[in-house]
Amino acid sequence: MAQAQKITPRTQDFSEWYNDVVMQAELADYSPVRGCMVIRPHGYRIWELMQGALDDMFRATGHRNAYFPLFIPMSFLAKEAEHVEGFAKEVALVTHTRLKATGKAGVQAVIPDPASELEEPLVVRPTSETIIYAMFAKWIQSYRDLPLLLNQWCNIVRWQFRTRLFLRTTEFLWQEGHTAHATEAEAEAEARQMLGVYRRFQEEWMAMPVITGKKTESEKFAGALRTYALEALMQDNKALQTGTSHNLGQNFAKAFNVQYQTATGGLEYVWNTSWGVSTRMIGGLVMTHSDDNGLVAPPKLAPVQVVIVPIWKSEEERGQVLGVGGKVKDELAHAGVRVEIDARDSVKPGAKYFEWEAKGVPLRLEIGPRDVAAGQAVAARRTGGKAPVKLAGLLAAVQGALDEIQMTLFTTAQERCEAHTIRGVTKQQFVDFMKGPGGGGFAYGGFCGSGECETEIKQQTGATIRVLPDPEFRSPEVPKTCMWCGKPSVAEAVWAQAY
Amino acid sequence: MAQAQKITPRTQDFSEWYNDVVMQAELADYSPVRGCMVIRPHGYRIWELMQGALDDMFRATGHRNAYFPLFIPMSFLAKEAEHVEGFAKEVALVTHTRLKATGKAGVQAVIPDPASELEEPLVVRPTSETIIYAMFAKWIQSYRDLPLLLNQWCNIVRWQFRTRLFLRTTEFLWQEGHTAHATEAEAEAEARQMLGVYRRFQEEWMAMPVITGKKTESEKFAGALRTYALEALMQDNKALQTGTSHNLGQNFAKAFNVQYQTATGGLEYVWNTSWGVSTRMIGGLVMTHSDDNGLVAPPKLAPVQVVIVPIWKSEEERGQVLGVGGKVKDELAHAGVRVEIDARDSVKPGAKYFEWEAKGVPLRLEIGPRDVAAGQAVAARRTGGKAPVKLAGLLAAVQGALDEIQMTLFTTAQERCEAHTIRGVTKQQFVDFMKGPGGGGFAYGGFCGSGECETEIKQQTGATIRVLPDPEFRSPEVPKTCMWCGKPSVAEAVWAQAY
Repeated sequence: MAQAQKITPRTQDFSEWYNDVVMQAELADYSPVRGCMVIRPHGYRIWELMQGALDDMFRATGHRNAYFPLFIPMSFLAKEAEHVEGFAKEVALVTHTRLKATGKAGVQAVIPDPASELEEPLVVRPTSETIIYAMFAKWIQSYRDLPLLLNQWCNIVRWQFRTRLFLRTTEFLWQEGHTAHATEAEAEAEARQMLGVYRRFQEEWMAMPVITGKKTESEKFAGALRTYALEALMQDNKALQTGTSHNLGQNFAKAFNVQYQTATGGLEYVWNTSWGVSTRMIGGLVMTHSDDNGLVAPPKLAPVQVVIVPIWKSEEERGQVLGVGGKVKDELAHAGVRVEIDARDSVKPGAKYFEWEAKGVPLRLEIGPRDVAAGQAVAARRTGGKAPVKLAGLLAAVQGALDEIQMTLFTTAQERCEAHTIRGVTKQQFVDFMKGPGGGGFAYGGFCGSGECETEIKQQTGATIRVLPDPEFRSPEVPKTCMWCGKPSVAEAVWAQAY
Repeated sequence: MAQAQKITPRTQDFSEWYNDVVMQAELADYSPVRGCMVIRPHGYRIWELMQGALDDMFRATGHRNAYFPLFIPMSFLAKEAEHVEGFAKEVALVTHTRLKATGKAGVQAVIPDPASELEEPLVVRPTSETIIYAMFAKWIQSYRDLPLLLNQWCNIVRWQFRTRLFLRTTEFLWQEGHTAHATEAEAEAEARQMLGVYRRFQEEWMAMPVITGKKTESEKFAGALRTYALEALMQDNKALQTGTSHNLGQNFAKAFNVQYQTATGGLEYVWNTSWGVSTRMIGGLVMTHSDDNGLVAPPKLAPVQVVIVPIWKSEEERGQVLGVGGKVKDELAHAGVRVEIDARDSVKPGAKYFEWEAKGVPLRLEIGPRDVAAGQAVAARRTGGKAPVKLAGLLAAVQGALDEIQMTLFTTAQERCEAHTIRGVTKQQFVDFMKGPGGGGFAYGGFCGSGECETEIKQQTGATIRVLPDPEFRSPEVPKTCMWCGKPSVAEAVWAQAY
């Protein structure tokens, strides 16, 4: 394990703090490949836990997993006009399939073999609508084949210039749901349903409050009819888009000729949806809960939920505390708690605390000789607070503590979010809020619907419309005028500076 | 669901039969991308079940999952001389990162933007030794950091000219374990241990008997010190390599400067191993057990273990059989059995049987009105045999039947393999065996160790040395001379025609 280093305080430099937390918790590391990261075991385990929870939810709503090719023929991407325009500037293109020796000695002595150039370059998938709907056209003949509800877990490549661990990387991992329906109403219901699944996951598992709503034209997915999104407020009061769900209409169905025979013998194009969340969520998790001591992981997604740190001075004490600690570990592990015992000889207890705190472990159980004598352990919560717990009944106490920590994290994040939200803003209030010392947050106000206002606001304040919020997030009093230009409002909007 | 089609009999054309089984069972489909396949939900579920079982075994042996970049700088691949030579002819190369409109209208109106050409092309990983060991060099400082035991589940690209669904595709899914150790002995023990894990998985889960052993120089992994492999005999008497485990020695450690400080303060290169199995195993599973009616899936890996087919004529009967069938389904599902009820109105029972047989479901429970009256279901095994079972005690009967089917599949495959194995062959016997009407199989004989004999044998019979078998597979009487050239034998070898 690398030497522990100091974490930059949030107040000093939030961006440095974030990188420090990710590195110290060993969630990820920089790779020698531009813009690509390595997800280390501690971070990858969070992703696996996320996958497990989401997979259960996807299955419960009737979806099945499948796998489609990494490569997409360049011409496929071009079949949907908005789609290719949206992705043209960030696609990795495979053009050759063999290496050739240059004849020069040394490590760089190979080049792409010109004779192996592909007739049509292949795009490394930046998203899979085109390749998946090409297959849908083959599989769907009749209304009996609908709805078709698939999901894919895979890697995605979008060439990025400014990258941040988890938040924006050239390669990332995600899931993309792709469905086909007989009617627009069904597609709309599906897109809405999956937005709800994401919200439930992000609130209940990640303990991360989100607001949901519709994207404006300027922010919608390239090729979609409507895009819905989830937005969460980070500790620096910037918004992070943590998932999207698209009603694609018949745009791709027409581009790839996905038609079905209706019950009455007619021929119709299907209605598609697609929806996705990615490893970016891990960045959201970090920036929602963590502190200047490192990662704070919500218990439901913590790779290690409980760490037992035995404390001893003599060999005799060592035997005692390891004996009791081992039994505690077995009891908790048997009940499904993700528990580790840190029995290293070469590291002092204080250094162990420091390390496991940086790794975000929600609950630490310290067991010293006096605890053994008293039949107890000392339970220290990552969210603060330390108290002895009796070994008899420990499991229930641990499970109760984990539940409480999970809940505390959510309510704390929610309170923070509310404290950085203003509603019914005027133009001046909005500017003061976004540029003020508080550092912004979510601002709710009336919106006239014009792209010009969006552009101007972005230029002057750095804020963009995150969503036109869903009813449950709207203000009790709906604004009647655009907070920027004063014209009649077509919808309430939520602005924020965003990642 | 597509119209069921006839499956080509194995005796008529084994290769066509294989494709028909894969397509009819909806395991996979051809994609519009050359050499790449789509893994459909029924096939992907098998992969997920394989992943789950293997992940448990990897974790139990101390390994942790991580994720490394898809792209590898071209120069990295070139750092290990044998390695780059081994993969030079089959790598996909990313050279550009933007598309540009050609100005022409129409769907093909984009080209790679010449201004976006990369200074150094990126290789789409054909395997990840080079990128992973570059990271190991960063993470490993001292003997305390060893052993480092990682595993990665990911997609892999190797440009192939002749492809077959699952067996050989340009893109495939796999896991690759990568470890670093302080000593050669530890690396050797690790490579051996993981070969054992694979053997256990393939025998106990896939019900596929394998032989294990060492590859000869001509067949070893590009960059390895020693390669161990598992080989299984398919129903056409060709061998399929179903996994490999490599002791990489210090080859990559030297190329990527992965050194550690010893306990006594010295500096040493680490010893690496890597080991992998892929979606190719699904092809092996198909070719080991399936028949002319379609897929036969071993219960432990069957996406659907039990299908309930209710049979009715009147509406009243329909209510009865669906009621009982639903209860049976709930009981089995609750106990963890993967069960479906096929309640479709539009499909007749016979057609349902046909479809679920093609999909390899191990056990079918038919429930008609007379069965309801008698408090029973009729259980039909995919491996043959049909008998009534009482609904009282059904769960135990189903679990017992699944266990028996699992065992039957293994012993049947093992007997078939033994029936197509000959030992202590002479040159003439060998030629007759490989070219004879029986179609070959595993031939054990003495081997002089020369590459010339290997080449000659391959040219004349199409057979290659699959492995120099491990002790438990060796013949009681070790051959003293090379079965081909008659010179002294250095080891017993197992030859076969192979995929």
